[in-house]
Amino acid sequence: MVSAKVKRLDAVFNPSSIAVIGASREPNKIGHVILKNFVDGGFAGKIYPINPNAEEIIGLKTYRSVLDVKENIDSAVIAVPAAAVPQVLEECGKKGIKGVVLITGGFSEVGNVEGEAQIVQVANKYGIALIGPNCMGVITPASRVDSVFLPIYKLGRPRVGGISFISQSGAVGGCIVDLAARAGIGMSKFVSYGNAAVIDECDLLEYLASDKQTEIIVAYLEGVKDGRKFLRTAKKITCKKPIVVLKAGKSRAGAEAAQSHTGSLAGSAEAYKAAFKQAGIIEADTLEQLFDFAKIFDQVLPCGNRVGIITNGGGMGVLATDSLEEEGLALAEFSEDTKKLLRNSLPPYANVRNPLDLVGDADSHRYEIALNALLKDENVDIILLIILFQTVGIDSSVVNIAIRASDQKKKPIIAVCTGGEYTEMHKRILESYGVPTYSSPSSAMKAIARFLSYANHYSKYNEMVCPHLIKKSK
Amino acid sequence: MVSAKVKRLDAVFNPSSIAVIGASREPNKIGHVILKNFVDGGFAGKIYPINPNAEEIIGLKTYRSVLDVKENIDSAVIAVPAAAVPQVLEECGKKGIKGVVLITGGFSEVGNVEGEAQIVQVANKYGIALIGPNCMGVITPASRVDSVFLPIYKLGRPRVGGISFISQSGAVGGCIVDLAARAGIGMSKFVSYGNAAVIDECDLLEYLASDKQTEIIVAYLEGVKDGRKFLRTAKKITCKKPIVVLKAGKSRAGAEAAQSHTGSLAGSAEAYKAAFKQAGIIEADTLEQLFDFAKIFDQVLPCGNRVGIITNGGGMGVLATDSLEEEGLALAEFSEDTKKLLRNSLPPYANVRNPLDLVGDADSHRYEIALNALLKDENVDIILLIILFQTVGIDSSVVNIAIRASDQKKKPIIAVCTGGEYTEMHKRILESYGVPTYSSPSSAMKAIARFLSYANHYSKYNEMVCPHLIKKSK
Repeated sequence: MVSAKVKRLDAVFNPSSIAVIGASREPNKIGHVILKNFVDGGFAGKIYPINPNAEEIIGLKTYRSVLDVKENIDSAVIAVPAAAVPQVLEECGKKGIKGVVLITGGFSEVGNVEGEAQIVQVANKYGIALIGPNCMGVITPASRVDSVFLPIYKLGRPRVGGISFISQSGAVGGCIVDLAARAGIGMSKFVSYGNAAVIDECDLLEYLASDKQTEIIVAYLEGVKDGRKFLRTAKKITCKKPIVVLKAGKSRAGAEAAQSHTGSLAGSAEAYKAAFKQAGIIEADTLEQLFDFAKIFDQVLPCGNRVGIITNGGGMGVLATDSLEEEGLALAEFSEDTKKLLRNSLPPYANVRNPLDLVGDADSHRYEIALNALLKDENVDIILLIILFQTVGIDSSVVNIAIRASDQKKKPIIAVCTGGEYTEMHKRILESYGVPTYSSPSSAMKAIARFLSYANHYSKYNEMVCPHLIKKSK
Repeated sequence: MVSAKVKRLDAVFNPSSIAVIGASREPNKIGHVILKNFVDGGFAGKIYPINPNAEEIIGLKTYRSVLDVKENIDSAVIAVPAAAVPQVLEECGKKGIKGVVLITGGFSEVGNVEGEAQIVQVANKYGIALIGPNCMGVITPASRVDSVFLPIYKLGRPRVGGISFISQSGAVGGCIVDLAARAGIGMSKFVSYGNAAVIDECDLLEYLASDKQTEIIVAYLEGVKDGRKFLRTAKKITCKKPIVVLKAGKSRAGAEAAQSHTGSLAGSAEAYKAAFKQAGIIEADTLEQLFDFAKIFDQVLPCGNRVGIITNGGGMGVLATDSLEEEGLALAEFSEDTKKLLRNSLPPYANVRNPLDLVGDADSHRYEIALNALLKDENVDIILLIILFQTVGIDSSVVNIAIRASDQKKKPIIAVCTGGEYTEMHKRILESYGVPTYSSPSSAMKAIARFLSYANHYSKYNEMVCPHLIKKSK
């Protein structure tokens, strides 16, 4: 089902050997930074710097051309001036290199349509899966492939995880990756695909659909070459994996700013909404929502829309309830067993209703009682766990309790933690153990609503077995 | 105009001397933490620990009662058990203490209405401005008053600034203060006012309206004792100072969760929206928006709705334009002079239109040219300055350029910076120099829209002199 060209992308993401064409001795040159990324980043395969004017760069023997290398080369990153690209690409083809990331700009994006056509012709002649030109490169945290030419203090690299992210814009892509790295969100593949001359967004979707390391696909799009094909491709994938899309240029003025591409998805924000919904795509309206919506899929899919809320701050419970109603979710009615259990285990001043306020002096033990009760309660489909780390009774052990509860994979557990450094520290721990954590009840409820609507879409094509064995509530 | 009781709040926020009643020798007791806050925090006035069973606490001579202190005492923080409160409050009255922060809980919030009535009676007899009971206390960064009993590693303290924040809920209030501290947002006063037995939200609004250090008032409300009075009070203030309100319990389910208070503002989310609008109140829908909307007032009020956008990432310009249209703002049309100047000064591949894309290799110098041009252009009322710190050409000097431009106080300059640690570091610098900085174009545009609608409200009651001397565009 996956085309040969798309299959060859394996060479880009998981190469055994890589050539850096345009590797430079000068520390501030792109070709130097990329080479250094592979060396310092701990890439385990062979690295071949290609530069006709150097013997050795950062301790590695340097070659004049990929054709001078005796061993096989799987993949190449090209960062030479635009005029030199056709020749080095031709050499890549002759060498049998399967995948290429072409960083160099100066092609169709500045009107050099001919130059780009020439590249496409060479790539197709040899069947090269070519990403770019005019792109920021690729990051695969697991294989330590990293062809992004920005230093890690400016642009952080995310840990290994299940989210793959493709971005047409290098700048937006870069800042989102940086954001993900800071938030502790794990990533499988990041691809800045630039002009999409050979490999386009549909090819990448296809590749990621069949990629075992990718659990969720996130895309930032401006123009799309073939809107219908994109929606058709997406629809096939969303039966199995969620796709979250932020489409820029949805407004009239925004579309003008994006200078609409030929054949691109056109129409109003409403038209997009409808088309995305039909294809089962989860639509993000803002940069923040891209990962807010993606990271919730670390949890098991919900089997119904009844949310149980646990909090140690009454006000946060009220805010959560406001947002729940706004997003059309249901406030779970705790079972009699749950109420009884909670009444017997919690202090008399804790109010045994939903939202369950454990009160400002709550400690980890109280959270444990509440979480276990709600995990058991058949009237609860999703647990929203609000933890205010500022309060007296709370320490780090509440994080372990939340992680253990989430590890049971019975019901989705979504956390809300609002605050400064101490809170952020614990948020990152929760995130790194797969408990999606939000800064406010409203951002969490928005994500839960998308999670639920994807679960509904998914259940049309797949038999869903609810881990806590209850019938669907909706 | 300000009542005597409200005037006495001065003693709470700027006392020359303070008694900590219930000061404890045990480090984990509330009465110890509060005493230590004053000592370690560098409170410049006299501090009197009150504890009948101690001679000395952390090096300070301890008194059995405030009546045993010979010198005048302006204010007291009370953290003794509920049963002991009436007596120590009586002693405060006899001593002539003007302001009291009553931390102790166990009154009307747990049904002890009689106990609370007794407190009110004593406070009124002596004319004490009493905050609480059942509250988290007060923070005044400038005078180093800090009666919040949570350690600073859990709950950060904000720097000195113009935002005052009142919160009915201690927990929500605490996490928002913590958030503000981390974001580098400056604060004049923080008040957790708890049960509002004596001093209520209207009294606090009145006090802050006449407080010179307070430029913007932010409030988190659940119930409101007297809705009409609140709106009337707010309306008088919003002619002069902006008020941003997050009202929890606006939904049906949320209101139930908040257990509606007698005489509280009732009605649907729509009813609130209308009432707030009429009173000139800026309504926040989420915790994030509370400060997103407040901090924009660090800038001069805008004289029109035409936004000029500068960016070094094309995609961010597109997203900003989408958000601008959604919020009903106008995309400025650059003047011919501006276009000419930019064409002559910027590289040929930079697109001289709005949004102005300085392109991925932009450096500080290019930002300086663009900022100066837009500050001069009479077609531009507001400048949205998008800086992606991940790119090659950007270093810290761009921050100085933005600050210098903002210091001219000609037009509002609003920044957008999205990313990880390096970006956050620069965001905090911008914020601390009064350049409001947002994580995404959409959150910035939402704030700009509120800023503009407040400017319209303000201009009805005040003559607005536009610093860049252009006629109003709207």
